[in-house]
Amino acid sequence: MKRIAIVGTGNVGLHLSRSLSTTDTETYLVNSRDLDGITGTEDLILIAVTDSAIPSVSERLSATLKDFQGIVAHTAGSVDADVLKGYFENYGVFYPLQTFSKKIEIDNYREIPIFIEGNSENTIHVLKEVASLCFENVYELFSEAREKLHLASVFACNFVNAMYVMAADILQEEGIPFDVIRPLIRQSAEKALKNEPEACQTGPARRGDTDIIRKHTEKLENNESLKKIYSEISEFIKKRYEQD
Amino acid sequence: MKRIAIVGTGNVGLHLSRSLSTTDTETYLVNSRDLDGITGTEDLILIAVTDSAIPSVSERLSATLKDFQGIVAHTAGSVDADVLKGYFENYGVFYPLQTFSKKIEIDNYREIPIFIEGNSENTIHVLKEVASLCFENVYELFSEAREKLHLASVFACNFVNAMYVMAADILQEEGIPFDVIRPLIRQSAEKALKNEPEACQTGPARRGDTDIIRKHTEKLENNESLKKIYSEISEFIKKRYEQD
Repeated sequence: MKRIAIVGTGNVGLHLSRSLSTTDTETYLVNSRDLDGITGTEDLILIAVTDSAIPSVSERLSATLKDFQGIVAHTAGSVDADVLKGYFENYGVFYPLQTFSKKIEIDNYREIPIFIEGNSENTIHVLKEVASLCFENVYELFSEAREKLHLASVFACNFVNAMYVMAADILQEEGIPFDVIRPLIRQSAEKALKNEPEACQTGPARRGDTDIIRKHTEKLENNESLKKIYSEISEFIKKRYEQD
Repeated sequence: MKRIAIVGTGNVGLHLSRSLSTTDTETYLVNSRDLDGITGTEDLILIAVTDSAIPSVSERLSATLKDFQGIVAHTAGSVDADVLKGYFENYGVFYPLQTFSKKIEIDNYREIPIFIEGNSENTIHVLKEVASLCFENVYELFSEAREKLHLASVFACNFVNAMYVMAADILQEEGIPFDVIRPLIRQSAEKALKNEPEACQTGPARRGDTDIIRKHTEKLENNESLKKIYSEISEFIKKRYEQD
């Protein structure tokens, strides 16, 4: 049975430990400040801390470990695997592509795609083996492509949520409950889940309806930030479809 | 049994006719170019054409109708009800808040919220009655608030899809299939369906991770439009949460 330590008790660490603890492994969560609980007998140590903290945690971790035979992998989307080079002999990346919030449950861990990178055939093999215990879709992806994937996920997830927040702000000004817009949110996501997003685009910019675009930007006159965002995204859509 | 004509065979007209034709009404779809099929005996005529075409269609329609006793309503989010004033005695708005694409089925018409406005008590009453045949959530909303609602829906739907398109563009550069990002899209939408979007925000800008933000904007160096959009939305998120 594999021994797995997860260093870092943030969103990613917490959810990975929940997921791995349901499998036939011995998995424990370790605080990144004191590394208390790390024994050096682990098959795999996952570093699930803020990107900028990975080097300092690696340094302290490598000082703790003597003749460590296991693998150390970080869980970050936009950090090169080589950040671990020099600290550990066997290292890699174990990146689950999902939006984790501590208080929000994940309905289906198994469908989360996971992206693996390792500095040797054996490292890749072990990381894939562990990943397959929890996740159905395990991919091998090198650092540069993974960073592009992370960038894409910022658009498809973080910025999508920012759009919801902006919509909520606009509705609140009129005292309209956010609930009225939820069916639209569901349908928009479902369309993109079943079709290519390019084919799903609707709205004033898609139709090239400059009257409405002008009206809308006028309504945002008192909100410079939303006005700019509205204009930039509308421009993107108009250009993207102007051949049509 | 109510007679309802829908003028306009675009996305909204088509879907409204599909929905109304399942109810105990006599509903027919009419081409906006020739208005062929309009008899003047309708209880309700819905004008489902592009916003800018509403005045010209109204003019031709009013010329066709003699002593019309029914109601004429348009289905646009951002057009004032008064655009119909002068053309018709009984007029209003019948605005379904949803993203309609001709080729994409709607799973659940009944949950689409519908927003009603009318120039008299009786008009409002009839529009509500018809709306209730198809839709569970019928609201009365005046033009100004409806226009804000439409603006919010551009963010929550059209711009959300634009984010998916941008993500797809970035992934395509690396030859990564869009499928890998779909679980993230599902989870992001589900979070916002069950929680307030403010509480769901994650990502580099939410964490104030300026290193990643700089890395990402560097990666977008060759795409001025996406780079600007990335920066503006990240700024919005940072400011929105800077008190945290």
